[in-house]
Amino acid sequence: MQPPPAEPGMHESEVDTPALVIDLDVMETNMNRMAEFCRKAGVGLRAHAKTHKSPVIASWQIERGAVGQCVQKTAEAEVLAWSGVRDILVSNEVVAERKLKRLVALQSMAKVSICADDSGTVDRIEQMAEAARQRLTVLVEIDVMGVRCGVRPGAEAAALARRIATSPHLIFGGLQSYHGSAQHLRSEGEREQAIASAVRKTVETVEAIRSEGLACEIVGGAGTGTFRHEAASGVYNEMQAGSYIFMDADYARNNPRPEFEQSLFVLSTVMSAARDGVAVVDCGHKGIAIDSGLPLVHGREDIDYVGASDEHGTLALRGTSLKVGEVLRLVPGHCDPTVDRYDWYVGMRGQRVDCVFPVAARGMMQ
Amino acid sequence: MQPPPAEPGMHESEVDTPALVIDLDVMETNMNRMAEFCRKAGVGLRAHAKTHKSPVIASWQIERGAVGQCVQKTAEAEVLAWSGVRDILVSNEVVAERKLKRLVALQSMAKVSICADDSGTVDRIEQMAEAARQRLTVLVEIDVMGVRCGVRPGAEAAALARRIATSPHLIFGGLQSYHGSAQHLRSEGEREQAIASAVRKTVETVEAIRSEGLACEIVGGAGTGTFRHEAASGVYNEMQAGSYIFMDADYARNNPRPEFEQSLFVLSTVMSAARDGVAVVDCGHKGIAIDSGLPLVHGREDIDYVGASDEHGTLALRGTSLKVGEVLRLVPGHCDPTVDRYDWYVGMRGQRVDCVFPVAARGMMQ
Repeated sequence: MQPPPAEPGMHESEVDTPALVIDLDVMETNMNRMAEFCRKAGVGLRAHAKTHKSPVIASWQIERGAVGQCVQKTAEAEVLAWSGVRDILVSNEVVAERKLKRLVALQSMAKVSICADDSGTVDRIEQMAEAARQRLTVLVEIDVMGVRCGVRPGAEAAALARRIATSPHLIFGGLQSYHGSAQHLRSEGEREQAIASAVRKTVETVEAIRSEGLACEIVGGAGTGTFRHEAASGVYNEMQAGSYIFMDADYARNNPRPEFEQSLFVLSTVMSAARDGVAVVDCGHKGIAIDSGLPLVHGREDIDYVGASDEHGTLALRGTSLKVGEVLRLVPGHCDPTVDRYDWYVGMRGQRVDCVFPVAARGMMQ
Repeated sequence: MQPPPAEPGMHESEVDTPALVIDLDVMETNMNRMAEFCRKAGVGLRAHAKTHKSPVIASWQIERGAVGQCVQKTAEAEVLAWSGVRDILVSNEVVAERKLKRLVALQSMAKVSICADDSGTVDRIEQMAEAARQRLTVLVEIDVMGVRCGVRPGAEAAALARRIATSPHLIFGGLQSYHGSAQHLRSEGEREQAIASAVRKTVETVEAIRSEGLACEIVGGAGTGTFRHEAASGVYNEMQAGSYIFMDADYARNNPRPEFEQSLFVLSTVMSAARDGVAVVDCGHKGIAIDSGLPLVHGREDIDYVGASDEHGTLALRGTSLKVGEVLRLVPGHCDPTVDRYDWYVGMRGQRVDCVFPVAARGMMQ
């Protein structure tokens, strides 16, 4: 692990770069806004830890009323459970026996639920839970996008729910119904339409499951791009938004008047300014994710980040110049995978370092 | 850090996924071929550790005759120096005082050289070296691509060389002359042409520096895509290839009869197969870099990896099917940033795990 790039009390210009920094004031405002929204809408917030990968930030969300956390990976569930988070949903299929054993072993310290879309896997989970004399909550994932994991909505989902409910060591926990691609559709109208379709499929499935005599305790889904629609649907009861705490350039592009502000940045230093109109910074795509577009340079409309190689970022300067050693804030195109590149968060209040804490679940692949 | 995903002796199917695996037999053949080539060509191999990020692999290269290692980052230099690598070139500009102090402090245990393209930075390096009572070797980087770091070839480079040579605590070490973008040009003819241009600029610069009464001890550059051209130039004397040990899908596309074979894979498990003709694996772009194209599925021409989200990879199946739990080898589009996602290498002999060792310089951003 890298040593921390900063110490509390330092000025921003003294932080070793590239570094992952949070504007804590902005992040707290974002967290408060979402907490208030969910309270008023009467839905639970099960914030997604795939964004922050940090038990510290999870605790700040739970303190504000979040019912628990989502994760994508077994190893992420371990990091949170080992830090005292008590209610965790792996919003993803887990199929390997090795991983299922580890998840079952976490039940002593936390309620850890998982998703399934395959009857063979349900049987394997039952075996693992039986062997450990534990009971495990399993949700059925339905494929509301038609392109990724999940069984078909309706009868197929109901049959899988019944299989879970009739497994002696499993508890049927409800539905995982997340429309991932809708989060990044460009217009509000497109997002609304996509979620309307997901809501119809979810309602149909809840009814099919009810006709089996089963109740969906959790109907979970939604992200930062669409949560208002799921919350208004009357059928979803848990919001799984994650990015709202940080935001990124891609979310900003989709919403001309965003209700959450950018709080996550990568600090980067100009390392070369040998040519006019161009500067090179010390952060390429090793240090900032480019899967959803190149980063922006915060507060500098006269500078464009135009090219990322592994360790270098090329800036085009429009009527301005930069000196070697100058430090800039970059806005990531995509927050979640950017966070995964770093070992440490540097929490800022204004331009002063307030705290430094680890991205504890960074790189938790498995 | 994640726990290791495997133990020696395990079968490939037991490895926890996603996992970064090396076919050790293939990698050794690749290392032997490059070592032999450099010996015959009479050039040094200063293999680039930005690819492997591992003192273990560095030691295997040095054992085969490599003169040392290149790195891109101060923290990478530390990891290698602390592991006993004795000759390290930071093939990159270092500008922050904090980093320069750390590099100067390494001189007690290794010869660590760095590059510069700015006279102000040269003065700062001199101050740091003087303060620590050390002498530091500095190379001049010239911009043979015309798009990134480096001073202009010729007179400008010679002036900077003189400034280094006349700084009491600095040693002028030679030229860094790397044509990064040429490595990935599609045809051999294009790559040859790009390097011919780089060679002309390098020769011109070596002569300009000689007319200052200075010698270029090192003239370094070249990568896996072009090293034969630099080696044949008569002016380059150190090859900085890195990817040749692993290879990737992008290099394979550029060379229909590659002299190095694929030795690096990401093992990934089918986690969902709920729809006909499609399967979802547990490795998306968090686990495999997609900046140079999507991964391939090794040995399976009937399967295409067609979509990567953060944690999921979507496979299109042509006339075949996959079961939940099946394990596949993915060929990364780009090896260096893929390695940076992982804490552990799993070294395989055939389908058995031979050894497990850390990606010790993973995430060394600074």
